[in-house]
Amino acid sequence: MENQTIGEKEITMFTEKDQKLKKNMSRIKHKIAIISGKGGVGKSTVAANLAMAFALNGHENRVGILDVDIHGPCIPKLLGVKGKTCPISPIGALPVTGPKGIKVVSMDFLIQNQETPVIWRGPLKMQAIRQFLSDFMWGELDFLFIDAPPGTGDESLSVMQLIPDMDGTIIVTIPSEVSEDVVKKAVSFSRQMKIPVIGVVENMSGYTCPKCGEKVNILGAGGGKRIAEELNVPFLGQIPIDPNICEKADKGETFINGNLDSSSVKAFKEIVRKVQDFLSSKK
Amino acid sequence: MENQTIGEKEITMFTEKDQKLKKNMSRIKHKIAIISGKGGVGKSTVAANLAMAFALNGHENRVGILDVDIHGPCIPKLLGVKGKTCPISPIGALPVTGPKGIKVVSMDFLIQNQETPVIWRGPLKMQAIRQFLSDFMWGELDFLFIDAPPGTGDESLSVMQLIPDMDGTIIVTIPSEVSEDVVKKAVSFSRQMKIPVIGVVENMSGYTCPKCGEKVNILGAGGGKRIAEELNVPFLGQIPIDPNICEKADKGETFINGNLDSSSVKAFKEIVRKVQDFLSSKK
Repeated sequence: MENQTIGEKEITMFTEKDQKLKKNMSRIKHKIAIISGKGGVGKSTVAANLAMAFALNGHENRVGILDVDIHGPCIPKLLGVKGKTCPISPIGALPVTGPKGIKVVSMDFLIQNQETPVIWRGPLKMQAIRQFLSDFMWGELDFLFIDAPPGTGDESLSVMQLIPDMDGTIIVTIPSEVSEDVVKKAVSFSRQMKIPVIGVVENMSGYTCPKCGEKVNILGAGGGKRIAEELNVPFLGQIPIDPNICEKADKGETFINGNLDSSSVKAFKEIVRKVQDFLSSKK
Repeated sequence: MENQTIGEKEITMFTEKDQKLKKNMSRIKHKIAIISGKGGVGKSTVAANLAMAFALNGHENRVGILDVDIHGPCIPKLLGVKGKTCPISPIGALPVTGPKGIKVVSMDFLIQNQETPVIWRGPLKMQAIRQFLSDFMWGELDFLFIDAPPGTGDESLSVMQLIPDMDGTIIVTIPSEVSEDVVKKAVSFSRQMKIPVIGVVENMSGYTCPKCGEKVNILGAGGGKRIAEELNVPFLGQIPIDPNICEKADKGETFINGNLDSSSVKAFKEIVRKVQDFLSSKK
C-alpha cells in the first residue's frame, strides 16, 4: 500500500516537472537547434552569432541560448560571459545575461574548476538538460537557440525529445568529404525526430590569403552544398575561413557585429536572412 | 530457486565476457587512446596516421585501430576501407584489413545505409564498445590505437574502464583559446582515470600561403603548447594546416607516407618518435 503511494507521488512529481518544462518553453516563440554529426565544425560559433544577429535586429533582451554541450561547453567563452554564475532567485535559477541581453544557460556556469571534466553518462546528462529547460527562468523570449554537442547520442536526443514544437534544425558542416558522411546522418536524425531542417551551413569554406589574395580550399570544397542538394534540404550559405572569427571568439566577441565589408560577415547575414524567411513562411 | 539459477547463469556469462575481453586485449602489446575534449580537432587523422606510421616502421600486419566514435565514425574513410564489412568466422568477427595490414573495427562497417544515424543512448554504446574489444578477433598485435569521440562521456569512459593496462593517452587540440579550456578537461579526465598522458598534439597550427609564403595563425597560436606547459604534460608537436592532409583524407589515404619534405610530414614524424620514446622508457 505504502509502495503504491510513493509511486503516485513520483508520478505527480514527474508530471509537475513536465508541465513546468512545457510552460517554460511555451513562453518562447521560436526554438531552433544547431546540430551537426561532426565536432569542431563551428556549431557554437554559428549559434552565438545567430543569437547576436537576432538580438541586434530588433530582439534585444529577447534572445536565449542554451549550451547543451555538457563535456565541452563553449558558448560562455564565445559571448564573453565565462566565469559568471547563474543568479538564484526564490522562483528558480536565472540565466546569465550576456551582451545585448542574450540569456545564456550552460554547464560551464555550474562547474567550479574549469579544468574539471564532467564525467557523466547519459541518464545524468538527460536530467541536466531537463533542468536547463524547466528549472531556469528563461522568461518571455522571441528566440531560443540550442547549441547541441556533436553526434546523435544522449544530448541531442534529449533536446529533441524534451523541447515541444521546435521550429527546426540548422545543420553545420565543413566542406570536406570526410565530414559529409557524418553530417548526412544529422539530416536523417532531424527527419527521424520529425523536426524540419531549416538548412545546411557550410563553415570554414575556403581561405583567401590576406597578402596575395590566393584562395585555397584548405578543407576541400562544396561538401555542404552537395549534401543539401543530395538530401533535398535548403542550403543556407558558405562562411569562409577567417582568422578574425577565431580571434574574436578568443576575445569573447561575436564576429557578426564586426567589419561589414568582410566576406564572412556578408555570408553570415545572408544566412540570418534565410532563417528569418523560413520562420516567416511558417506563419 | 529458478530466479537464482538465472542470476548465476547471468553472472557466469558476464564473467566469461570479461575474461574474453581481457584475454583478447592481453595479446596486444601497446594500447594508446587518442582523446580530446573538443570535436573536429583531427583526432581521427592523428590516429590513422599514427597507425600507418607504426605499420610502415617495422610493424606491418601488427597494428590495429578501434574507431569508438559510434555516431560519426571516420576511420574507415581515412584508411580507404569505407563500405567494407567485417568478415565473420566461426570463432568471432574479424576486423577489416586496411593498408599495410592495419586491422580496423568501426561502427561504420556494421551499418547498412551510410545516411542512417546511430541514435543510441549510453548503455547501448557501452555494450557495443565491449563487443568491439571482446568479440572481434584482433589477434596478436604490437599496437592498438583507440580513436575516441570528443568529450568525457559514455564512450570515452567505457574505453578507459574496459581496456586493461592502457599505455597512455594522446591528447589532440587546435591552437585556439576556446579549445584550450575544453582540452584541459581531457588532461584531467586522463589523470582521474589514472592513465598516463603521453602528450599533447597541437593540430591545425598555422597556415602558410603556397603562393606568397605568408604565414597566418588562422586558428590562433600556441594553445596546445600552453596547455602542456601549464598542466605539466609533454608537448609532442605542432602539425601545420595543410590542404594536402584534407585532400589525402578525402581520398582515403594517410599523409604520413606522402611528401617527405612537407612540414606536416616532418612534424608528424617527430610526434611518432616521441611516442616511441615514451613506450621505450616505460620498459
